[in-house]
Amino acid sequence: MLFAMQQNEGPLSRLRRDHERLVLDLLRKQGPMTRGELGGLCGLSRTTLYDIISALVASGAVVTSVPQSAHRGRGRPVERLTLNPQAGQAIGIDFARRAVHVAVVNVAHEIVGTASETHGSEMSEDKRVDVAQRLVGRLTGGALRLGALGAIGVGVVGPVGRPGEEAGLGHNGDTLAALVRERFEVPVLVDNNTRLAALAESTWGAATGEQDVLYLRLSHGVGGGLVVGGALHRGAEGLSGEFGHITVDPEGAPCGCGGTGCLETVASVGAVLGAYRAQGGRADDVPALIEAIASGDARASSVVSEAGARVGSVLAAVCNAIGPAVIVVGGELAALGRALTEPVERALSANILPVSRWRMSLRPAELGEAGAALGGIALVLHESPLLTHYPAESKPEEKA
Amino acid sequence: MLFAMQQNEGPLSRLRRDHERLVLDLLRKQGPMTRGELGGLCGLSRTTLYDIISALVASGAVVTSVPQSAHRGRGRPVERLTLNPQAGQAIGIDFARRAVHVAVVNVAHEIVGTASETHGSEMSEDKRVDVAQRLVGRLTGGALRLGALGAIGVGVVGPVGRPGEEAGLGHNGDTLAALVRERFEVPVLVDNNTRLAALAESTWGAATGEQDVLYLRLSHGVGGGLVVGGALHRGAEGLSGEFGHITVDPEGAPCGCGGTGCLETVASVGAVLGAYRAQGGRADDVPALIEAIASGDARASSVVSEAGARVGSVLAAVCNAIGPAVIVVGGELAALGRALTEPVERALSANILPVSRWRMSLRPAELGEAGAALGGIALVLHESPLLTHYPAESKPEEKA
Repeated sequence: MLFAMQQNEGPLSRLRRDHERLVLDLLRKQGPMTRGELGGLCGLSRTTLYDIISALVASGAVVTSVPQSAHRGRGRPVERLTLNPQAGQAIGIDFARRAVHVAVVNVAHEIVGTASETHGSEMSEDKRVDVAQRLVGRLTGGALRLGALGAIGVGVVGPVGRPGEEAGLGHNGDTLAALVRERFEVPVLVDNNTRLAALAESTWGAATGEQDVLYLRLSHGVGGGLVVGGALHRGAEGLSGEFGHITVDPEGAPCGCGGTGCLETVASVGAVLGAYRAQGGRADDVPALIEAIASGDARASSVVSEAGARVGSVLAAVCNAIGPAVIVVGGELAALGRALTEPVERALSANILPVSRWRMSLRPAELGEAGAALGGIALVLHESPLLTHYPAESKPEEKA
Repeated sequence: MLFAMQQNEGPLSRLRRDHERLVLDLLRKQGPMTRGELGGLCGLSRTTLYDIISALVASGAVVTSVPQSAHRGRGRPVERLTLNPQAGQAIGIDFARRAVHVAVVNVAHEIVGTASETHGSEMSEDKRVDVAQRLVGRLTGGALRLGALGAIGVGVVGPVGRPGEEAGLGHNGDTLAALVRERFEVPVLVDNNTRLAALAESTWGAATGEQDVLYLRLSHGVGGGLVVGGALHRGAEGLSGEFGHITVDPEGAPCGCGGTGCLETVASVGAVLGAYRAQGGRADDVPALIEAIASGDARASSVVSEAGARVGSVLAAVCNAIGPAVIVVGGELAALGRALTEPVERALSANILPVSRWRMSLRPAELGEAGAALGGIALVLHESPLLTHYPAESKPEEKA
């Protein structure tokens, strides 16, 4: 089992996880306290609480200490329970097509650092995990301690298996995840890296604190992700957020997906640059296109404007269907700024249910290329704060 | 507070609800048992368990009994706790534009019955609640007992407020919900009735047991609802499932929503009948159109086929974005059967991400006009199995 385990678990194991989360939440919010104080607040039986605390201490998530003042009194000094400040380092790794991105956060969920390294598209999976390990070592200064909050969230290119599905069915990321688990000796959660970038933007980025977020990535491919009710949305078969493959022109160009006239055929980096060159413009990359617009080249503006209109109409359709509060636009093309977002907003506004117009906010992504790696961490924090209690190869015990 | 209350509650009250659900689940699955047996299974402290059981008994959800055999022994006979078979009647009411639909289920979640009554579009809200009350009385033979599982789920036309939002902000359904609460003296949950039909189809209908369902209703209006991960999806502002207002033709007809060329302008009952009549056909309603197709009128088939193609392309866009497992098509036009679903499936297949084609299943709705009323019940069962513990006017107490 490489994937999240809380699916399909019984009410009792779910309750146990809730208990553990409650204990950690209380320690985080109320500070250090004794077992007795904790018992008074959480409403759990002594036996249950003892079990939970033992597991948390054993995993390194919680440490016990005796306050100096307690030694002065009579009798056995009372231990206090504290969250282990060293325990919470969480790691996210994004295995992009030609780069490895790594991010690390501490127990307070503050970003300790991010690092990236590009590589050739043919590099073996084993070598790519070497790169990840080196980057993690650099960020943590060799002092990495994966405690109770420490699983690793891994982003991979392309669709992944159904959440909770057994690994080894040939899904993207199976091998990478297995390698990461071997090297770091912790459980690994895997998801599509664009989807993880969506989760990261709603956790640390442009849509921080928003519960319903649509993230669109306009890059060499066009894709995205949805956060629904604060959680990453995956769809029935792990295929969702495929905004790039929504048809915008049934008579359009063939798409790499096998379809015809997908958004990706008109709004990817390659499509936009190609359309500009077809009009006699010269630009090999997005910065050159930005320069052309800045220098007043009307062809460049018009090409970007047309792509933006297509993007806006697709966003409107998706917004009518699912009603997000915020749209975040990332990827290389987002660097075009207002030249892109103005036509996007115009088409969005023209095609969205009028009553929704004022409710929608379009924002540029904030996390850049480290987004998906940070999303890996967000995945771990959202979905498995206590995953290391359950060794990667076995299921949580039911208490019944 | 007319709306669901579990949003924004703290971890402690959420935990209390989980505890209550656990106790009810254990009684439902394991049958009658003593407090001691229950305590051994659920892991709660005596105090917590005592509180939970007292509340459940006080609300009528759980009854105590002493088995005959227990009287024979010495000492005080041991009471056993049982789910109250009379307590679980749950009611759903759909206040449609020109009809009231009511559905009742028992504690085993079996449908006891459904009933409907049509009325003029001008009938006052007070009178419509009279109708509902009469229908409920008829279905329950006057023996209605709203126990612990009994809140009432109410469906209304149009968007409702944000879940958990205070009532009285002028949202659709505020008055109706308040009236129902007064008459039946129970908490009331409100949602859009088309969305409730979606939930009902995934609970008792064409998509029973499915976690990710797209429901499309092709009627005088075109709308729908989404079930995401087993729960009703609402969107950030209570606006989602507005498939009828996705643009299919930017040059098209003006739509009632204020937009242009929405799906509703080409795939509603009125639009399809209108297109047929524009070609010289004669049909005032869907049955007449069905007859025309059956009699081999190519104009009728072609009109339905064109509408179906539009529907399919919209469904493909939404499926690419959110990846449901099942699409359920309901509403009057669904009666067209294969004449409609074949062109829908063709367009869906042509426009959906090729890798998703074989994963998608399109099914006719099964619950008919009672769907939204049943959805009201599903809403209550999904979202507030214990809502009557918390009187409608006050918030649940936090135990901290």
